[in-house]
Amino acid sequence: MKDIQNSIDKRKLSINKTGIKHLIYPMKIACKGDRYQTSVCEFDMFITLPHNFKGTHMSRFIEIVEKYRTKIINLDIIGEMAEDIMKKLEAKSAEIKIIFPFFIEKTSPISKKKSLLNYQCRFVCAIKGNTKENILEVRVPITTLCPCSKEISKNGAHNQRSHVMIRVNSSRKIWIEDIIKLVEKQAPCEIFTLLKRDDEKYVTEKAYKNPKFVEDIVRDIVFQIKKDKNIIWYGVGVLNEESIHNHDAFGYIEGGKTPKCIHWRYS
Amino acid sequence: MKDIQNSIDKRKLSINKTGIKHLIYPMKIACKGDRYQTSVCEFDMFITLPHNFKGTHMSRFIEIVEKYRTKIINLDIIGEMAEDIMKKLEAKSAEIKIIFPFFIEKTSPISKKKSLLNYQCRFVCAIKGNTKENILEVRVPITTLCPCSKEISKNGAHNQRSHVMIRVNSSRKIWIEDIIKLVEKQAPCEIFTLLKRDDEKYVTEKAYKNPKFVEDIVRDIVFQIKKDKNIIWYGVGVLNEESIHNHDAFGYIEGGKTPKCIHWRYS
Amino acid sequence: MKDIQNSIDKRKLSINKTGIKHLIYPMKIACKGDRYQTSVCEFDMFITLPHNFKGTHMSRFIEIVEKYRTKIINLDIIGEMAEDIMKKLEAKSAEIKIIFPFFIEKTSPISKKKSLLNYQCRFVCAIKGNTKENILEVRVPITTLCPCSKEISKNGAHNQRSHVMIRVNSSRKIWIEDIIKLVEKQAPCEIFTLLKRDDEKYVTEKAYKNPKFVEDIVRDIVFQIKKDKNIIWYGVGVLNEESIHNHDAFGYIEGGKTPKCIHWRYS
Amino acid sequence: MKDIQNSIDKRKLSINKTGIKHLIYPMKIACKGDRYQTSVCEFDMFITLPHNFKGTHMSRFIEIVEKYRTKIINLDIIGEMAEDIMKKLEAKSAEIKIIFPFFIEKTSPISKKKSLLNYQCRFVCAIKGNTKENILEVRVPITTLCPCSKEISKNGAHNQRSHVMIRVNSSRKIWIEDIIKLVEKQAPCEIFTLLKRDDEKYVTEKAYKNPKFVEDIVRDIVFQIKKDKNIIWYGVGVLNEESIHNHDAFGYIEGGKTPKCIHWRYS
Repeated sequence: MKDIQNSIDKRKLSINKTGIKHLIYPMKIACKGDRYQTSVCEFDMFITLPHNFKGTHMSRFIEIVEKYRTKIINLDIIGEMAEDIMKKLEAKSAEIKIIFPFFIEKTSPISKKKSLLNYQCRFVCAIKGNTKENILEVRVPITTLCPCSKEISKNGAHNQRSHVMIRVNSSRKIWIEDIIKLVEKQAPCEIFTLLKRDDEKYVTEKAYKNPKFVEDIVRDIVFQIKKDKNIIWYGVGVLNEESIHNHDAFGYIEGGKTPKCIHWRYS
Repeated sequence: MKDIQNSIDKRKLSINKTGIKHLIYPMKIACKGDRYQTSVCEFDMFITLPHNFKGTHMSRFIEIVEKYRTKIINLDIIGEMAEDIMKKLEAKSAEIKIIFPFFIEKTSPISKKKSLLNYQCRFVCAIKGNTKENILEVRVPITTLCPCSKEISKNGAHNQRSHVMIRVNSSRKIWIEDIIKLVEKQAPCEIFTLLKRDDEKYVTEKAYKNPKFVEDIVRDIVFQIKKDKNIIWYGVGVLNEESIHNHDAFGYIEGGKTPKCIHWRYS
Repeated sequence: MKDIQNSIDKRKLSINKTGIKHLIYPMKIACKGDRYQTSVCEFDMFITLPHNFKGTHMSRFIEIVEKYRTKIINLDIIGEMAEDIMKKLEAKSAEIKIIFPFFIEKTSPISKKKSLLNYQCRFVCAIKGNTKENILEVRVPITTLCPCSKEISKNGAHNQRSHVMIRVNSSRKIWIEDIIKLVEKQAPCEIFTLLKRDDEKYVTEKAYKNPKFVEDIVRDIVFQIKKDKNIIWYGVGVLNEESIHNHDAFGYIEGGKTPKCIHWRYS
Repeated sequence: MKDIQNSIDKRKLSINKTGIKHLIYPMKIACKGDRYQTSVCEFDMFITLPHNFKGTHMSRFIEIVEKYRTKIINLDIIGEMAEDIMKKLEAKSAEIKIIFPFFIEKTSPISKKKSLLNYQCRFVCAIKGNTKENILEVRVPITTLCPCSKEISKNGAHNQRSHVMIRVNSSRKIWIEDIIKLVEKQAPCEIFTLLKRDDEKYVTEKAYKNPKFVEDIVRDIVFQIKKDKNIIWYGVGVLNEESIHNHDAFGYIEGGKTPKCIHWRYS
């Protein structure tokens, strides 16, 4: 059978990214303490195609995912997958992104009730020649309370569900669980899936004592991240689903050495 | 050219709904006071296909939409479109749903600044033989504040963005603008796109004075709707995007004479 | 601490549904052959609130989910959860919906390569007094090819990704796996995550030999479902993401005894 | 009333982006030939906040949008808005992104029937000190047919709906309409909202004669773009919603001088 993908291309245009998007696969995600949890992942996987090849072999991306199906994955393993793809498709660069929900068992502050909270996470790994880069992204839902509204109002203050998006490129292994803890400490108050009445009182009062703008939260998180000397690059965004509006407030800070292999221009 | 759709089918199965979904078209939506606004609508349009026909002619749905492109539409005009489709496709029943954002200019409570707020609306019309039914759906974003949190906390109370979904089948013409007003009056506080500091104080304090559960809001809205004797059927849902959780609270009441031609089992 | 939810309400309006929406939790889903798979579920859970109660206790829904976290669930277990909620909240009716991706290992037709395909599923259970109803929903992606396009064109025929949505209320236990098999047999061709070149040839040629309109597929599936005397009610929808348009074609048939406790008017 | 946002911040962290996201507003979009169309836009608007300021004044972003509500907008006007925001908020940089559906009246190839097709577009403008950059993004739905499937199969070839995403930074004014034409010429076949049977024959046969991989389409489009010497930077992505899979194929090429002010790392 003719292998059209392997035929020669004369347009003299190499392709930055070719591969698959939106592949849904269940995977085992590494947790702290030698454990794992099964989650449902969405994969984007690309390689670079030299100008003289007509097309890539899309089925080989799936074969790589199948190969890792029973393994416990983390950022390092995603890096191995990227290397595997490069070899299998004889490419000079590769990139893998996977998005998945990650669950942590939390204990409510007063009644000590246990429940799970989900955090959307992303592993990104790109290889270009001899350079390999990793990014861990974690999204943390929190509650925020407006300092301006508190200051100017006789009673109460508007507050809302907010989402912190944090991305780090670290030279040392970094755990999802630790990133979440770092973020939740800087929130006016962390949130929980299960709260009894005395917990609700605690959460309401703690947020009221601790008002912060999006700008405050993003700064406070970055202030903490900068203490970790292993973090090469970071990007932190905070989105407030304003309770007094139908649009959102947003703040973003990034710093460190901008990744060279990973970019978001094609997302 | 052979008309396969018109060939005879022997499986003896009539089709409840056949047609098109997710068609995006700009349309002119009627506003109070003989005005209109241009919006971007998403159409679902179906007819019933008798058991002896193999398929419908999908292009004719588009021709009907094209025909109404320059007209100013409301629930009555959607009804005319449904009749047109029935005729054109020789069908015994038809259904049209369109979803679109609708904008209202609101004035902030203290500084009197003007801005637009968007409300997702839906017109639904179904005809079955001689029976024709209409439903108007409006979604109204509001701010809600928790009575329990206020009662038990020393200061503050958790509040959040909420969405009211209201559906009515009315025997008399009913305006989107009036439904929105009815809903916003029952909210702890309505929301605005543009608020200056003194407005923010007003909104914060009003919501704090006026705490309501999802159950309260849905009841208060239904209490008002029941006063309107022209309303044959109503369904009211309230969704609170809880600021202290990552899931939502929901309440729903419906009443009156359940629609016979319109149902949501296939959505 | 005052229990505001338990206070007496005087508006004389009972609430059809009150509870939580969009709760994300990992659960173990039963598979054929005494096995299970871990998936990520989204829960909607409601009870009916009598007119004289002000509010429900939202945290109790979460406690029920927590209780079932380590169990292997299926439609029967969802029914038990609904009964638990009724007891715990002293309600006269309850409803639970959970949506989750379900994976099946498929073998490609010629090269016999294995890979997973995901199918979005839903368990729905509603109890009203002594009546309990279950619905299983499965969404099956397939490939479809247009009979009209094939008939009138010299070469080729437009084809596309399509989605079958099938809902059944059955008096006997019914497996997700069996519903998927039933649907895939009626498709012009089933789809696979991993296809090598000889598989791609097989799939292309099979779909070309087997053209069907949305109307054909929905009829062929219903024809098969009607043979199963345990199925009390069914609803089958087919959506074609037309490759020659930017909108979709849709067909829907339902039959049997319409569910009384489960309805979609508030979704 | 105290202006908390204006108070002094001591964390020594300037903020790359602070502002609003997901604001929905109707706007008049410029079309070729001195005409405009009303569309529904989603705005993201940011400024940079110096390290010594605590917060920005979110309401001023809305005031700017209000000011431009009645104007006809294009990339240049978005640039003016960005300048206005910088002045109003005394910022050193600003960024605006708006996304909106844009409609073009197309004529079917044989029957010459008219209908509208919608294209999702985006204007992006960022200013940093004296540098101003613009990007126009257009998304064009097309039909694609697989060369490999055609080559190896006795009859037919799998085809599907695909989406081209094209982004350009041009030194000269560039029309949405012209970008769409450029893309549609390189597609196996362009798509239409309204097709009669003889049009369907034409579209089916044209796509069959003109098979292309994602890699081919992205190369052919880039080949054309490179002829336009005014284009400073481009990024072109093609996504095939594969009819034989439940995941997508993707190809991306970018070239020219990478934008300095506009980046996607925080999206």
